[in-house]
Amino acid sequence: MNHALNNDTIVALATPQGVGAIGVIRLSGPKAIDICNAVFGTKSLKKKDLNAVQSHTIHFGVIHDQDIIIDEVLVSLFKGPNSYTGEHTVEISCHGSPYIQQQIIQLFIKNGARLANQGEFTLRAFLNGKLDLSQAEAVADLIASNSATSHQIAMQQMRGGFSSKIKLLRQNLIDFASLIELELDFSEEDVEFADRSDLKNLVTSIQRIVQRLIDSFEVGNVIKNGIPVAIVGKPNAGKSTLLNTLLEEDKAIVSDIPGTTRDVIEDEMTIDGVLFRFIDTAGIRETTDIIESIGVEKAYEQIKLSSIAIYLFDVHEITPNELKLIVAEIEPHLHNSQLVLVANKIDKEDMEYTYREFAEFKDMMFISAKEQTGIDELKKHLVKLFDNSTVNVTETIVTNARHVEALRHTNSALIKVLEGLNQNVTGDFLAMDIRQALHHLGTITGEISSDDLLGNIFSRFCIGK
Amino acid sequence: MNHALNNDTIVALATPQGVGAIGVIRLSGPKAIDICNAVFGTKSLKKKDLNAVQSHTIHFGVIHDQDIIIDEVLVSLFKGPNSYTGEHTVEISCHGSPYIQQQIIQLFIKNGARLANQGEFTLRAFLNGKLDLSQAEAVADLIASNSATSHQIAMQQMRGGFSSKIKLLRQNLIDFASLIELELDFSEEDVEFADRSDLKNLVTSIQRIVQRLIDSFEVGNVIKNGIPVAIVGKPNAGKSTLLNTLLEEDKAIVSDIPGTTRDVIEDEMTIDGVLFRFIDTAGIRETTDIIESIGVEKAYEQIKLSSIAIYLFDVHEITPNELKLIVAEIEPHLHNSQLVLVANKIDKEDMEYTYREFAEFKDMMFISAKEQTGIDELKKHLVKLFDNSTVNVTETIVTNARHVEALRHTNSALIKVLEGLNQNVTGDFLAMDIRQALHHLGTITGEISSDDLLGNIFSRFCIGK
Repeated sequence: MNHALNNDTIVALATPQGVGAIGVIRLSGPKAIDICNAVFGTKSLKKKDLNAVQSHTIHFGVIHDQDIIIDEVLVSLFKGPNSYTGEHTVEISCHGSPYIQQQIIQLFIKNGARLANQGEFTLRAFLNGKLDLSQAEAVADLIASNSATSHQIAMQQMRGGFSSKIKLLRQNLIDFASLIELELDFSEEDVEFADRSDLKNLVTSIQRIVQRLIDSFEVGNVIKNGIPVAIVGKPNAGKSTLLNTLLEEDKAIVSDIPGTTRDVIEDEMTIDGVLFRFIDTAGIRETTDIIESIGVEKAYEQIKLSSIAIYLFDVHEITPNELKLIVAEIEPHLHNSQLVLVANKIDKEDMEYTYREFAEFKDMMFISAKEQTGIDELKKHLVKLFDNSTVNVTETIVTNARHVEALRHTNSALIKVLEGLNQNVTGDFLAMDIRQALHHLGTITGEISSDDLLGNIFSRFCIGK
Repeated sequence: MNHALNNDTIVALATPQGVGAIGVIRLSGPKAIDICNAVFGTKSLKKKDLNAVQSHTIHFGVIHDQDIIIDEVLVSLFKGPNSYTGEHTVEISCHGSPYIQQQIIQLFIKNGARLANQGEFTLRAFLNGKLDLSQAEAVADLIASNSATSHQIAMQQMRGGFSSKIKLLRQNLIDFASLIELELDFSEEDVEFADRSDLKNLVTSIQRIVQRLIDSFEVGNVIKNGIPVAIVGKPNAGKSTLLNTLLEEDKAIVSDIPGTTRDVIEDEMTIDGVLFRFIDTAGIRETTDIIESIGVEKAYEQIKLSSIAIYLFDVHEITPNELKLIVAEIEPHLHNSQLVLVANKIDKEDMEYTYREFAEFKDMMFISAKEQTGIDELKKHLVKLFDNSTVNVTETIVTNARHVEALRHTNSALIKVLEGLNQNVTGDFLAMDIRQALHHLGTITGEISSDDLLGNIFSRFCIGK
């Protein structure tokens, strides 16, 4: 598809599928107002000219196909360029009936619109300069966000925080490049316009910022996809009861607010706005043949993938000395993850002696997964671990794999520039690498883009956005 | 709940649950604008006074909780009484993220709104005189409508077509009643203000209209819930293949339009805008132990419940004479349903002889459910049967069980009035029955209503409507 051509008018349902109170259909393109005008009338079917009304106004009336009234609607009018897409846009708020929505969309198509592709409204907003590419991508992230942190990062990115950072870096590099290119123009005269050590400092500082952005992806990815948590332990330790207890509670919180229940992804859970994701819990739930020792390959794999590893055990079956051995066994596998020891089944016997016995394990949590004792404390502890181990959201955090890829390419090119400066290579070699760095930085915000890239990005959007 | 008190402000998500391009949150009540105002700002977080702007205008900005930006939104403003509910109403069009929607709703609640009950926006519209009760009920029917006919009937009812008919009847009865009541005032003088035979004509004509409305419910119910179709026949006749073929095709049509797929109710199907409903098809599909003969109780039950009975048979296994016997056996059970003979498996052998053999069965359809031959013809035939057997949509058709119940009560009262007139009973007896008739007619449009009735009606709505 050729993204440069936008001279047609597109239509799609902008609200989720299904029955609801209302649905919104969106039309965008040069003929959006005309197409709506052709089928819109007042309640008593008199003509009303939507071309004659002001932008950002709302009009009550009916959508009709000849003398058949399809629905009573509210029409919201946005005259380009003052709209989301930058084109003329009309939004029709109709009754939340899939049948009616189909009828209206088909009527618009009959009158000259065509059904929008996925993300095509946002693509047009990008092509019309309403937002850059990383902002457009943030729109999709924003819609998918399901925790306070992922939401705030996506919001910041959509509002241009990330873009302005990248643009600043790019501008610095462009300034640098123009000095080098100037040298090249006078290369026969063997002049150096730029002080090479100043140049080195500039590139070094840019490269460090780029490196920091790359490093932030580890956190960014965790925020976007959830903090990976492994729950390991012997088969009878109560892992699935604990997991169900944690998830159940989450579901209850969500459904506390009538009308806001949503599909809960079984093994994800948000605590205090932080998203946690349980690794391979399907395995944990099903596997009853995990052999006695924690030393199974599977458990170690789970720990390796996690940021937090919970070792759950029946407090009446393990002695403090055994626990010490187990911890020693687990520790070499921890890499970046933090170990949380959780003693389960405190409901079963009097605990006074046991508490004293395990006193040396400072951060150990005592719970009864079955009786839901100590679960709140465990949750708070998990959130605290996240706070400690990570991030200030006000810093720029990269959450997008495409962006981090482009930053890595930028970084490689910058390192080559630095090497070149160290080895006193000629300006034309430096210029080549700087152009590479500029190119990759430019793909992030879409100053440089291709149809393939755009197709790839916007095909991940839903229709109607 | 006391429906008279509406001095609080309610909030709900008005669009369907789930992830989409956008979602709409609706606020209604005396403080709707103030509550939104408290958390709304321009893109750069400057204050913007929504009280100072005109009704029916749209404003771009952000919803924020102190310095946390929850979303960039469009706010649509409707100043009472020029809104759906008749109160101040604000609609917030935000990103289609369940997380964001929850955050915004909770923020509004924190600022003084409360979560709306089911149908509470429409209830308020009713209480504020924006629509009457039968119109309000039509809103729910409209949203649920899934065929051209049910859609048109609901639309007509929502636009007041049915209400004005009922109101006219009621007005006629009130005029009549006032004459009778006048007589009662002068009862000692034994005057007759109204010519009794004129009165009889008037009541007769009203009663006939009421009776016709009651009769229309049989059709109305069918339109709303689908025309009941029974497919009966021997186990090997291909019933489930036929049903699947019919339903599959329907699904394909629906999903032809990207972005408009909806949950298909397995055993319902719309052909040319007409809704068909297959009776007890679960039974048909599962039952393999239906005994040889059509003469099973189950099949007769299905036929009894149907408007159309399809007798499906393997054309190579039944002779014309056997078929005649079967038809003779079925016919006494048909009541109101029409029989369609469908010969299946025409793909299996050369049909030339068979066609001639069955020539005497005029309306018989020949199909191959497996090869999908003759299916279109069968569908067209089903639609034609509906057209013949039923209705002109421009006539008033009652589709609501509550309305038909009220009409039946009205009818009984009117018949008593007529009997009274025939028996020359005194005015006070007539007046009593007329008041009964008026009462029941009044419940349809809600001129007479109770909290229980309203609670019952609006609890069937979705939240946000």
